[in-house]
Amino acid sequence: MQNADVVVVGGSAAGITAAVTAKRHYPDKRVLLVRMEEKVLIPCGIPYIFGTVGTPEKNLISDAVLEKGQVEHVIAEVTSIDREKKLLHTSQGEICYGKLILATGSLPSRPPIPGADKAGVFTIVKDVAQIQMLQMELRDAKDVVIIGGGFIGIEFADEIMKGGGKTITIVEIAPHCLSLSYDEEFCIEAEDALRSRGIQIRANTKVTGIHGTTRVEGVTLSDGQTLKADIVLLGTGATPNVKLAQNAGLRIGYTGAIVVDRTMRTSDTAIYACGDCAKKISFFGGRPSKLMLASIATLEARIAGANLFGITRENPGTVGVWSTAIGDLALGTAGLTETVAKADGYDVVTALVEGPNRHPGCMPGAANMKVKLLFEHNSGVLLGGQVRGSSAAGEMLNVIAACVQKRMTAEDIAMFQMGTHPALTASPVVYPLTTAAEIAITKIRNKG
Amino acid sequence: MQNADVVVVGGSAAGITAAVTAKRHYPDKRVLLVRMEEKVLIPCGIPYIFGTVGTPEKNLISDAVLEKGQVEHVIAEVTSIDREKKLLHTSQGEICYGKLILATGSLPSRPPIPGADKAGVFTIVKDVAQIQMLQMELRDAKDVVIIGGGFIGIEFADEIMKGGGKTITIVEIAPHCLSLSYDEEFCIEAEDALRSRGIQIRANTKVTGIHGTTRVEGVTLSDGQTLKADIVLLGTGATPNVKLAQNAGLRIGYTGAIVVDRTMRTSDTAIYACGDCAKKISFFGGRPSKLMLASIATLEARIAGANLFGITRENPGTVGVWSTAIGDLALGTAGLTETVAKADGYDVVTALVEGPNRHPGCMPGAANMKVKLLFEHNSGVLLGGQVRGSSAAGEMLNVIAACVQKRMTAEDIAMFQMGTHPALTASPVVYPLTTAAEIAITKIRNKG
Repeated sequence: MQNADVVVVGGSAAGITAAVTAKRHYPDKRVLLVRMEEKVLIPCGIPYIFGTVGTPEKNLISDAVLEKGQVEHVIAEVTSIDREKKLLHTSQGEICYGKLILATGSLPSRPPIPGADKAGVFTIVKDVAQIQMLQMELRDAKDVVIIGGGFIGIEFADEIMKGGGKTITIVEIAPHCLSLSYDEEFCIEAEDALRSRGIQIRANTKVTGIHGTTRVEGVTLSDGQTLKADIVLLGTGATPNVKLAQNAGLRIGYTGAIVVDRTMRTSDTAIYACGDCAKKISFFGGRPSKLMLASIATLEARIAGANLFGITRENPGTVGVWSTAIGDLALGTAGLTETVAKADGYDVVTALVEGPNRHPGCMPGAANMKVKLLFEHNSGVLLGGQVRGSSAAGEMLNVIAACVQKRMTAEDIAMFQMGTHPALTASPVVYPLTTAAEIAITKIRNKG
Repeated sequence: MQNADVVVVGGSAAGITAAVTAKRHYPDKRVLLVRMEEKVLIPCGIPYIFGTVGTPEKNLISDAVLEKGQVEHVIAEVTSIDREKKLLHTSQGEICYGKLILATGSLPSRPPIPGADKAGVFTIVKDVAQIQMLQMELRDAKDVVIIGGGFIGIEFADEIMKGGGKTITIVEIAPHCLSLSYDEEFCIEAEDALRSRGIQIRANTKVTGIHGTTRVEGVTLSDGQTLKADIVLLGTGATPNVKLAQNAGLRIGYTGAIVVDRTMRTSDTAIYACGDCAKKISFFGGRPSKLMLASIATLEARIAGANLFGITRENPGTVGVWSTAIGDLALGTAGLTETVAKADGYDVVTALVEGPNRHPGCMPGAANMKVKLLFEHNSGVLLGGQVRGSSAAGEMLNVIAACVQKRMTAEDIAMFQMGTHPALTASPVVYPLTTAAEIAITKIRNKG
């Protein structure tokens, strides 16, 4: 029987980060990570296997991260938790724990569409063999229908398209793809980019049925039309994987995730949870959040790992910072979109700035960059921002993320001291963040 | 005679930003900018004229910024200020002001080297005609010696080299190029990049004389050697241009700049100053700073412009955020370097992280990125950071700049919520800022 001071269940972003953090903060403790997978896929990299990277083997998280962090690991399936004896039953025998961290992730949702269980209908599972199987099936497919125009949907569409020779259609129930993640103007830019790359988009449309005899042959849409389909991909969200926790009697919240407090501790004082399986709250007002992102998972893991033997960290709630790329077009959001902020009842002032990301604008690598910032009217506090640009937009977004996290006001951001360089950034005279802040200050003053 | 509520003298980054800010904050006031130059060069873009952009005309700040900002402008040389009558004498007649902002910039220093006044020895002046003349002279030059391995020196060297056919040597008095701007390990990387591009570097070396009969033919070095030179460029710093202010009796500080308080007001309550001509203090402890950067100038301009008719902004002091690029190598610093911090007496903890800026590391655009963070030992407060990477390093640097400005601690940064994406950033599991913060936390704990 194995025995460790800290046992982490789950080997993806949350599990690895929790284990490494625990060992870093408690170097005298033995930390053991238990995971089911022989090889662990980089979760956000999965779409890129299909057009850019080529094989799942090129999209793996190396065990070097664990080794460097002095974390041992076992490949086994945990079948149950005996909380009284503080031990795990696994496919490789029992493992005793002092503290346990659950990082069991999420499972793709399968929407209740008739025929969704037919052969040729795939969810995206974080598993090498299943990804290989999907790759094989895609090789001969002519018509691919993707249900759901979220990140999974658009990134898979774009990647699969790179192979050529296929008709790819995204069917999205909302008026626009990505509408949970960006304001409409940014969603439209993303859709234009997808269409320019040959991808069909059917928005405002629901798939009412998936048909075929032995396997999928097509889908029926809410407008009565049908689309041919050799392959259907479901990109319709994910559900916290809480079976183990639930069977052990841990409290599960009404969002379906393991209930944790702001220290990431579950209803059992010896058990913590982090990542997709753990309950999330928003940075904005503390209400429940259903966002699932690897970056959120690693934050929670850094909290859980540090708190095991003495509370030092508190979860401030999920800011929500994400980005995606379609070719040279990168799109990012930090904090609230205008749509979400207004739905939440905020009185909002926005500022939009557009211009080259180099100075002069004829420098190599120059691209048009658009930044939208969103402030609360009364306080002037930054609620969120969106960026559209080239690859540096990913880090420009993180500047906005820092400003949101420190609850900077428009006035604070107008006083932001940034570095600028002709070959790397916009001009300091029209740097998008300070310019947007100044625009917002004027609007706030005029609004009274 | 012209008459304006606000008159700004100087048409570069500081002047434009001050004028636009003044109009934005006081839309009912008439704002007039007076400048000498018909066409205004983008100051930081000047080196890039020589290898990348091609002509000064492609490196101009468009007057559209002024027009959009509803700022009028006059092209004239201001010869003196009558502070009692609140009017300017100019080459185009008198101009009355209510409030005056001086943004007269800086002039390149000419070191006291014998022969520095010979034909063929150039300082870099922000003037279209002079840049054109230098371009002409460089066309037939075979041997170029650049005195000073700061930003001007290395950026000119790299750009002139792109034309081919020349021997270019940088002579630097300090042990390394850029040693005022980066820690040694980063300076060495910059030097390696320059050498790999064919540029000669003579560090730890002084130019003791510039010789030649009618014009420059060579230089003598402190080790007795000589170098052939058709052209000598002086990249040895700049001096605040304060003649106008000095003649008007405004107070000049011992760094040679116009004395301003934290509101950017000079010793005359109707006159403000900003940019290279204005006195600077450091964000770290408020002591005088000799840094001159366009980004600092625009911050000061946003303060001066907003404060003209009612103080709303206070200068927190210069953080110091800069970057440069040598081919695909970008290097940035925000705040203090380790060298400077130690010289200032700080007890410092550093953390260094290196890894790919994409995940997986085989994604297109992947490059190795190095981040060094520097914390005060007792408080854990971030004092500065340096980044070496590809073009996104410019904005990654601004994330660090935000953290420095909000005086974030290592613990704050460990809890940083960043956005990550395979095609745009490092993995959230090993994101350089959070990882460096965790390393620093361990070091601080172990150091006790």
